[in-house]
Amino acid sequence: YSVGILDADIHGPCVPKMLGMEGQRLRVGPVGAFPAVGPLGMNVVSMEFLLGSKEVPVIWRGPLKMIAIRQFLSEIAWGDLDYLLIDLPPGTGDEPLSVMQLLPEMDGVVIVTIPSEVSQIVVGKAITFSRQLEVPVIGIIENMSGFVCPECGAETNIFKTGGGKKISEELEVPFLGRIPLDPRICEDSDRGLPFILEHSDSPAAEAFMEIVEKIEAYIKEKDKLKRQPPDASNNK
Amino acid sequence: YSVGILDADIHGPCVPKMLGMEGQRLRVGPVGAFPAVGPLGMNVVSMEFLLGSKEVPVIWRGPLKMIAIRQFLSEIAWGDLDYLLIDLPPGTGDEPLSVMQLLPEMDGVVIVTIPSEVSQIVVGKAITFSRQLEVPVIGIIENMSGFVCPECGAETNIFKTGGGKKISEELEVPFLGRIPLDPRICEDSDRGLPFILEHSDSPAAEAFMEIVEKIEAYIKEKDKLKRQPPDASNNK
Repeated sequence: YSVGILDADIHGPCVPKMLGMEGQRLRVGPVGAFPAVGPLGMNVVSMEFLLGSKEVPVIWRGPLKMIAIRQFLSEIAWGDLDYLLIDLPPGTGDEPLSVMQLLPEMDGVVIVTIPSEVSQIVVGKAITFSRQLEVPVIGIIENMSGFVCPECGAETNIFKTGGGKKISEELEVPFLGRIPLDPRICEDSDRGLPFILEHSDSPAAEAFMEIVEKIEAYIKEKDKLKRQPPDASNNK
Repeated sequence: YSVGILDADIHGPCVPKMLGMEGQRLRVGPVGAFPAVGPLGMNVVSMEFLLGSKEVPVIWRGPLKMIAIRQFLSEIAWGDLDYLLIDLPPGTGDEPLSVMQLLPEMDGVVIVTIPSEVSQIVVGKAITFSRQLEVPVIGIIENMSGFVCPECGAETNIFKTGGGKKISEELEVPFLGRIPLDPRICEDSDRGLPFILEHSDSPAAEAFMEIVEKIEAYIKEKDKLKRQPPDASNNK
């Protein structure tokens, strides 16, 4: 697959650090700017690539963020992508609103949460938000779901468990899976290495890959329906 | 102390749930609206108290959020408070910008982070942001700092450790302390009970109370300087 990542968290762009791409810049050519190239050939665009230093904050109100996101989508030579993944900050603020208004035809959104009930308040709002903007919800991922002590093997649900599944049933949205806590996720991210490649045999990476397969299947199914000629779907 | 809490996270208001105040509304009187009253007599205002249901999202761009925060600060009969705590969403977006512009005389900001390097990017930006807006940084708290297995007592640094202290030294900001992970924090928050009262003898609550003392000392010292007549400070 040819994959692009747009880090649309304007105030807290973390994708470059997690992919080991700190200090990179966008390459500018005659037809626009080109994404930076990260691990596995991924095309990556982030506000961080436009700032001079990692300590510089972006002090912008919402409408300016809309303009930046529009430019990231329209004036970057993304190339021929199979997937464009857009990483958004939590909540239902300017960034998701801009993305959904600018890309109404997108395949859908994936909501990542921790299991606690407190977090489910924001998840419920995000689902209602997506429905109001008529963007499909592909599903919910419960991240940081359980921790197995590396010393004794005892499992502790540090942020409880089951909140993601519960709200997915309540609001009739698919549940994509649970990813457990693993200290190596944080270590690899800080080192800029993709955890699922570095520790592909870990339970967290296996849970992650199962989720990826579900999302892939959803998009393939959707593509198939899109390609069907109108009369074929009428005859169904 | 008489304490007010303004939950200024417009898109993900979590304070009502964590204080067991779900479903409450602001009381409206002839001179304005009154805060809802929570545990220990705290006066609490949150966007959640204005919405009809917990699944309703607030689909607003930045400038509308500025108006809401201004109204929360100016048109709520807060009463005679010793402390007004304003809970902000992560990052340097519209909410912190609005609060700092509307309350330039505030005592300062406390930045809460997890230990990982990835998080420190956002912390660095928040410190620069506060300095540019000329609001003092009281200090940094490293939350989710280490986890002790309740079965075997082994400590695992799930999100690494030391990131908060490191950046506080780099950017010359006080370090207020580390709060370890404890599953009971999540459980109590979901039940709407203050963890530091429910489990006051836990290491996390003790770490929390040490931090509170440091913040209290900072504000008392600042108050003393403010009350000193100008000639007294000149003679020093």
